[in-house]
Amino acid sequence: MNVNFAERAHNHNWKLDPIVRSLLDTDFYKLLMLQFIWKNFPHTQVTSETYNRTLSIRLADRVSASALREQMEHVRSLRFRRSEIVWLAGNTFYETKQIFRPDFLHWLEHEFRLSDYAIEEADGQLNIRFSGLWSEVTLWEIYSLAIVSEMKSRAAMATLNELELDVLYARAKTRLWDKIELLRTVAGLQLSDFGTRRRHSFLWQEYCIQALTTALGPAFVGTSNTALAFKHDLEAIGTNGHELPMAMAALASQGSDEDLRNSQYRVLDLWRRSYENELLILLPDTFGTTQFLNGAPAWVATWTGERIDSKDPFAAGDEYIAWLRSRGVNPAGKRLIASDGLDASTIVQIHNYFHGRIRFSAGWGTLLTNDFRGCHPRNEDSFEPISLVCKLTSVDGIPTVKLSDNPSKSTGPADLIARYRRVFNSPAQNETPVLV
Amino acid sequence: MNVNFAERAHNHNWKLDPIVRSLLDTDFYKLLMLQFIWKNFPHTQVTSETYNRTLSIRLADRVSASALREQMEHVRSLRFRRSEIVWLAGNTFYETKQIFRPDFLHWLEHEFRLSDYAIEEADGQLNIRFSGLWSEVTLWEIYSLAIVSEMKSRAAMATLNELELDVLYARAKTRLWDKIELLRTVAGLQLSDFGTRRRHSFLWQEYCIQALTTALGPAFVGTSNTALAFKHDLEAIGTNGHELPMAMAALASQGSDEDLRNSQYRVLDLWRRSYENELLILLPDTFGTTQFLNGAPAWVATWTGERIDSKDPFAAGDEYIAWLRSRGVNPAGKRLIASDGLDASTIVQIHNYFHGRIRFSAGWGTLLTNDFRGCHPRNEDSFEPISLVCKLTSVDGIPTVKLSDNPSKSTGPADLIARYRRVFNSPAQNETPVLV
Repeated sequence: MNVNFAERAHNHNWKLDPIVRSLLDTDFYKLLMLQFIWKNFPHTQVTSETYNRTLSIRLADRVSASALREQMEHVRSLRFRRSEIVWLAGNTFYETKQIFRPDFLHWLEHEFRLSDYAIEEADGQLNIRFSGLWSEVTLWEIYSLAIVSEMKSRAAMATLNELELDVLYARAKTRLWDKIELLRTVAGLQLSDFGTRRRHSFLWQEYCIQALTTALGPAFVGTSNTALAFKHDLEAIGTNGHELPMAMAALASQGSDEDLRNSQYRVLDLWRRSYENELLILLPDTFGTTQFLNGAPAWVATWTGERIDSKDPFAAGDEYIAWLRSRGVNPAGKRLIASDGLDASTIVQIHNYFHGRIRFSAGWGTLLTNDFRGCHPRNEDSFEPISLVCKLTSVDGIPTVKLSDNPSKSTGPADLIARYRRVFNSPAQNETPVLV
Repeated sequence: MNVNFAERAHNHNWKLDPIVRSLLDTDFYKLLMLQFIWKNFPHTQVTSETYNRTLSIRLADRVSASALREQMEHVRSLRFRRSEIVWLAGNTFYETKQIFRPDFLHWLEHEFRLSDYAIEEADGQLNIRFSGLWSEVTLWEIYSLAIVSEMKSRAAMATLNELELDVLYARAKTRLWDKIELLRTVAGLQLSDFGTRRRHSFLWQEYCIQALTTALGPAFVGTSNTALAFKHDLEAIGTNGHELPMAMAALASQGSDEDLRNSQYRVLDLWRRSYENELLILLPDTFGTTQFLNGAPAWVATWTGERIDSKDPFAAGDEYIAWLRSRGVNPAGKRLIASDGLDASTIVQIHNYFHGRIRFSAGWGTLLTNDFRGCHPRNEDSFEPISLVCKLTSVDGIPTVKLSDNPSKSTGPADLIARYRRVFNSPAQNETPVLV
């Protein structure tokens, strides 16, 4: 009785269980950057690359290139749906209406395409290389990372029986709830989900977000995942990433050292003009935070806040607060966002350290959406998180460089890194192991 | 798409979500005792009572008498189904065919009824009193206990939202799996589920059993729950309980002290004749284990094994082994079953203590099927297990007495307890708090 014959038959008919099912299933900052790129760099050609920074994990042994290609091709077959475009047009983001302009949305709906790509298998790793117009490459970042990340999860789950799968998720839920119990005791906490790119799976990210919504109330500010913000009426969170200063530095690197050094402020100037003085969050670590702040023009101190992504968050926040004071600005009205490898306990520590001094909020990433450490029912390590990244490698044929505050996160050709270190007066220091 | 309209509408139509849905949903020993009673005591009238020994928990504040009555009436409306009778007739139990005789099964299918009962609310407790033919009263024990136990769970769950319910079960599964991880390391372990009467719920008991089946393999010997043994092709486990010696002692108490003292062996004699020398597990603690063993006739030492239900299992096992030796019997071929308040860690300890000396197996009860300690998502104590019991209170108008090895578990009128203590030479000693 009550067998749903159509559903049973349909489930047997599946050829692919797609990981990314909507083009909105990406970080909100990618859409903001896409509009910026579409408007300011419509003809710029780039290459970028998705790869695994945790070389001890041989990804190609777990994920097949052909299955990866099937998932990628599925994303490429997607289009932004009418309802999604209508929502992007009509919804208020960061208390601002029409953050996406009608001409951009028209292009997004009718002309947007994802670039071509190549999958290369080498040394047990799978590298995905994208090349084409910047506006066709940029969105691949989150789609490709989320796909590889979930394919790794699926490969690990394929070795578990039904009971073991149940235990896996019971343990992960128990772990998540222990974190929520810690977080819900903290007054004035603010945090967002930043965990799309290295999530265990889409459904698990959705579960985590719904748990935080229910259990934390207004302390859970929103999610970087645009599809989940749309589906669950949450705030979409995020502004911009390293991709922009890296690209503009590469273009400027053809000129003088002064041009190169100034590019990190020109990108901000272009951003604030593109977004009419909204969405003003600094990301100062691309070529070193200290030199960035010291050399910044006066107007940089008027921005809303700063995101810390590679420096020790306590030191970086103190530095930002001292810098604001040195520029005659009261830090109490500013926003400080940390987003690098956070977990519940570190979120509470950083919150307690800055609470009352500056408006701290946490961007909780991989250790929210993919913390299955210790959850494997046979105590194997196949769910340990790895450091998957996607980096812009060249712009109009010119290699890009990122220095970052943590040399473990530097990218680019060695000779160019050396030049950048000299120009930006950013010697390598304080190398910290990267977990995720 | 794919909405099962009939199922959705049907779910809205439910008037009652029955806890006991089959008359087989009882401990196997009740069916063996029922056949024994039907055959040997067809006209005996009894009363029995289900109540909560954990007086600090005011059960009537959580469970309504009217809802309890609805569940009880549902059980009363049930009949043994044809397929169930066919299984009882055709299946092999304890390697014995036709343990249930055709005339008994004919009666069970066509004439069996459950007795009337009264629910009394007093001092915040709910007491259920059963009276009628012993064969109509006896099965109420497990049905009523399981119903009250699950109603208490449901009352606690009604205060949780969907996420909290999910967390509750995630934590309980995590807890169960931690126990399984401990148990699966132990070579030669043997254990059974004895947790029907105080289970969290039927579905949770079923989950626990399936987890043990999958994870422990042959170390998981079977379940006392006949419905689950039937459904999952497991061994049905259990032989007899205190009810039989209590009833026969009450009947004998009208005679001499000698008659009373001998009743504890006459019940065994009647049992072995009723079951043609199968199912020979001693339950020696009804009126004190030490006096039972010391005074036992020679043939008692030929029985297959002993179940410990109220004495410290290490001391009780040692005592049984020494007694077997004193009777010239090799303990290595005998069975030792512990079934009182066990958890995984105690099971391992007792197993390690007796392994190689006697064939130990554990009857794992409430702390298998209802261990939700520390699982409440807001850390309340509404899922803490309580000590629900059902006791035979009189037989043909004569009050019954149980002494047990733990005076906390004694039952009966004080003056009769005093007489029984004298007759059985069983002074009260070593009171131990009862958890479940």
